[in-house]
Amino acid sequence: MNSQEADSLRRRVAELLVLRASGHLSDQQRRYPQWELPNSELQRLLQEGVGGAILLGGSAVELQQRTQQLEGWSNKRLLFCADVEEGVGQRFEGASWLVPPLALGRLHQRDPELALDLSKRYGRCTGEQARRCGLNWVLGPVCDVNNNPANPVINVRAWGEDPNSASALAVAFLRGLKQAGVLGCAKHFPGHGDTTSDSHLDLPVLPHSRERLEHIELPPFQAAIAADVDSVMTAHLVLPELDPQQPATLSKAVLTDLLRRQMGFNGLVVTDALVMEAISARHGAAEAAVLAFEAGADLILMPADADAAIDGLCDGFSSGRLSLTRLDESLQRRADALASIPTDAPSGLIVTAADQALEAELVRQSITVRGAAVRPEAGINLVRVDALLPSAATLSGWSPALRIPETQGFRSVVLHGEGLSPWSGQPDAPLAMDRLGEGSVLLQLFLRGNPFRAGRDAQEPWAAAIQQMVALNRLAGVVLYGSPYLWDTVQHVLPNGCPLAYSAGQMQEAQFQVLTALFPKAAPPCKSGAFTD
Amino acid sequence: MNSQEADSLRRRVAELLVLRASGHLSDQQRRYPQWELPNSELQRLLQEGVGGAILLGGSAVELQQRTQQLEGWSNKRLLFCADVEEGVGQRFEGASWLVPPLALGRLHQRDPELALDLSKRYGRCTGEQARRCGLNWVLGPVCDVNNNPANPVINVRAWGEDPNSASALAVAFLRGLKQAGVLGCAKHFPGHGDTTSDSHLDLPVLPHSRERLEHIELPPFQAAIAADVDSVMTAHLVLPELDPQQPATLSKAVLTDLLRRQMGFNGLVVTDALVMEAISARHGAAEAAVLAFEAGADLILMPADADAAIDGLCDGFSSGRLSLTRLDESLQRRADALASIPTDAPSGLIVTAADQALEAELVRQSITVRGAAVRPEAGINLVRVDALLPSAATLSGWSPALRIPETQGFRSVVLHGEGLSPWSGQPDAPLAMDRLGEGSVLLQLFLRGNPFRAGRDAQEPWAAAIQQMVALNRLAGVVLYGSPYLWDTVQHVLPNGCPLAYSAGQMQEAQFQVLTALFPKAAPPCKSGAFTD
Repeated sequence: MNSQEADSLRRRVAELLVLRASGHLSDQQRRYPQWELPNSELQRLLQEGVGGAILLGGSAVELQQRTQQLEGWSNKRLLFCADVEEGVGQRFEGASWLVPPLALGRLHQRDPELALDLSKRYGRCTGEQARRCGLNWVLGPVCDVNNNPANPVINVRAWGEDPNSASALAVAFLRGLKQAGVLGCAKHFPGHGDTTSDSHLDLPVLPHSRERLEHIELPPFQAAIAADVDSVMTAHLVLPELDPQQPATLSKAVLTDLLRRQMGFNGLVVTDALVMEAISARHGAAEAAVLAFEAGADLILMPADADAAIDGLCDGFSSGRLSLTRLDESLQRRADALASIPTDAPSGLIVTAADQALEAELVRQSITVRGAAVRPEAGINLVRVDALLPSAATLSGWSPALRIPETQGFRSVVLHGEGLSPWSGQPDAPLAMDRLGEGSVLLQLFLRGNPFRAGRDAQEPWAAAIQQMVALNRLAGVVLYGSPYLWDTVQHVLPNGCPLAYSAGQMQEAQFQVLTALFPKAAPPCKSGAFTD
Repeated sequence: MNSQEADSLRRRVAELLVLRASGHLSDQQRRYPQWELPNSELQRLLQEGVGGAILLGGSAVELQQRTQQLEGWSNKRLLFCADVEEGVGQRFEGASWLVPPLALGRLHQRDPELALDLSKRYGRCTGEQARRCGLNWVLGPVCDVNNNPANPVINVRAWGEDPNSASALAVAFLRGLKQAGVLGCAKHFPGHGDTTSDSHLDLPVLPHSRERLEHIELPPFQAAIAADVDSVMTAHLVLPELDPQQPATLSKAVLTDLLRRQMGFNGLVVTDALVMEAISARHGAAEAAVLAFEAGADLILMPADADAAIDGLCDGFSSGRLSLTRLDESLQRRADALASIPTDAPSGLIVTAADQALEAELVRQSITVRGAAVRPEAGINLVRVDALLPSAATLSGWSPALRIPETQGFRSVVLHGEGLSPWSGQPDAPLAMDRLGEGSVLLQLFLRGNPFRAGRDAQEPWAAAIQQMVALNRLAGVVLYGSPYLWDTVQHVLPNGCPLAYSAGQMQEAQFQVLTALFPKAAPPCKSGAFTD
């Protein structure tokens, strides 16, 4: 191979890569500089032919400019994707953050028609906002069937807890994406719903038989393929019954034999991020990319080292370990996917009035409010947030979760996982009440079981703490924003008539709807009805 | 007056108003909806002739689009201002947040030439970034001489603690603004440096004689006027020696007799926000606007009710209470100010390499590091942040204040003012050590005495807590980011050789410089040197 041929091969190989980029325009603003390349590197790699970027961070408005900036550094049309499984606002401030899909999975049990209609609108809203921001590829729907309540990483991102709901809703969401003109992605193949460890931190093993998989895990993927899904993302988990050696992402048995041949999928196969510990702790960046491609993946997402991945793949093609025909096929699939969607980015505001109405409607259909109203008093508004630094979409200076109880006399005490501990260490009276001060407690828990936390939050004994406060006659009410599994537990330890509410979503709209129901006499926190307009 | 004349008067009167607008494009994202009009109202008022907006919130990139959006709703050139006294990044994420001006006031005592050079570059950087974002009017320099360490509202925003430093640095900053092509504003006339109450919450009274004012408070304003400052903002405080009845903002004796006639200022006089409690608790929106204009103000900032203010002013002109000649003069001053600055908005990235170098240089010149290095150990990184939700510029997932001590064995415990209390209630051992757990404590305090807090943070007994930890032999080191007055106290209670550091600025660059000095063996938290590139 002469140097011109080598250059040409390198450019073609680079096109298989999708690199992580901050959604911010400038390097200084990157939140995760250890994962997000600086602009100088991104620019070089895009000029050398890299084919796409996965974006995270920044506002939706900034993202519009960021995608233009990145495309300006390339000489071709790029794939721009993001993990916007719960609406673009889940990742990019200012766009719509919708209630987690699993809320619709539960609604689907009661009112399938309504749930399907809402899922389709959910997909359309997400797809349209994604396009307005310059994205052309939504990394959703999650097709994992969340059949294990202890799952730390899929959880409320799934569309269902059974194959039927998950399949139907994922397909409805996909239809919405298609209407909006963006690519979709069924993930994480062959199903990440029954894991109890987090593949961001470890490599989970799923002992299921092929039969069990066909019964539970595979149907949503089969349904998505039947609905002509554009791409499938692989899971970093080992299924010894399919491949005793390699995790799905690197397994020919899973990607080629099962997904391509037996299930007949002919779209883009993309790896989950290769930088995740499940892969990167076991393989170098070059070998991980080669193994994934060899197994049947078309696109290589977030390699730990882009240059090493390109070099490794080039060596593989040069040495004959990898097939150049496969390279042509993968590049053709990428080109076909891009050709299937419009090139123009619609103008106008990112969030329409219809989007806002959908956000509010999804909250309305997924909250539960029970028991009496909360009595105004000089009590404690005890708020447990999910993160040291909750997103502005969850908590800002005028969040209803703070301001509505405060107008009714409650003093806010906000806990996070890296603050002083509220726990006494005594199992039957776990909450250190002396640290809280006097008064009844309105407890608001923002706990949804996020990935990367290794289940830390779930270990806090909130159910016992609630029983403790009931026994002390100091519980004014309970609101849970997040995990339906924690809700299943919590609602059973509460006495009849105690004010309580649940919302799968944590957004301010959910806080507003729940708290105006619990405090029917509270004036809305601002005249203009700011949280619903 | 016929209806056409009335319409024309109303349009001209509306031009005097500068309304508060969120920096976000959409209503949903407003952080303070009780102060920030929804877009429908803003659009109507701008179409009816309102002359400007004061912006707050959102990212710098979003602000570029926001100013265009607002100008598109008007039919004329607008004044766009913001309280960017510490660089545009103080208010708009992604732009440069510079160390507070008072750090340069202290540097001016040691090295006046360097301080003056840095102040001028500070003004130029702020002005240029403001222009790139679409702003044309920087509400700075603060010309108040911070001669009262207990001042809760001016504090580190001032350029000096004596009239000499404050005058020289404010003028240097103004020169930088002029080079950048934006308007400046000397505030808060006749001087807000010696107040111990916060005019956001109350109306302060300054008992000083005219002689004292001429000696301490007025010189920076006189210097700014001599340097041709474009505008002067009034203070909401009562000076009984000048006007026993009205606060400066509403006082003819202060605005017309002193500022215009005796000090010879012929530029724009703008009120501070009329919505602040100091004014709005005493006067309705209409009467406040009329009184301010009558006293000598040209522009009415943030009236509590824009329509009421316009109606009130129109009635004043129609009835003859207010002079139409004065209206012509005020509008002419506004037109002259706008005509004096360029109309084009420069393109390109908001933050240049030179801006980043200035940010780092300002940190370098304003930090103090003393004593030994901190010994790595399994200790506690006790961080007290200024706000429940610190800005991303202060704290994000990868802030050096968290990550550098964590790489050295310290476990982060982050306190904020609305969390569980770390205080025992015992004066000689105020810190409840049992709530912290085992190990030595590296204490990092982000406390700068922000407005709106009524001095709450300053009441925490940190000096006594430090002495307590020294006595227990559990103090690993102390870092203070913020108030120089707290630093004056803290540095005197520490034993010789104890690792300690001070930075006036709270930005990540300051954390990085301070902590790499205190932990000389720590590897930088990321390969790419993300906090300095």
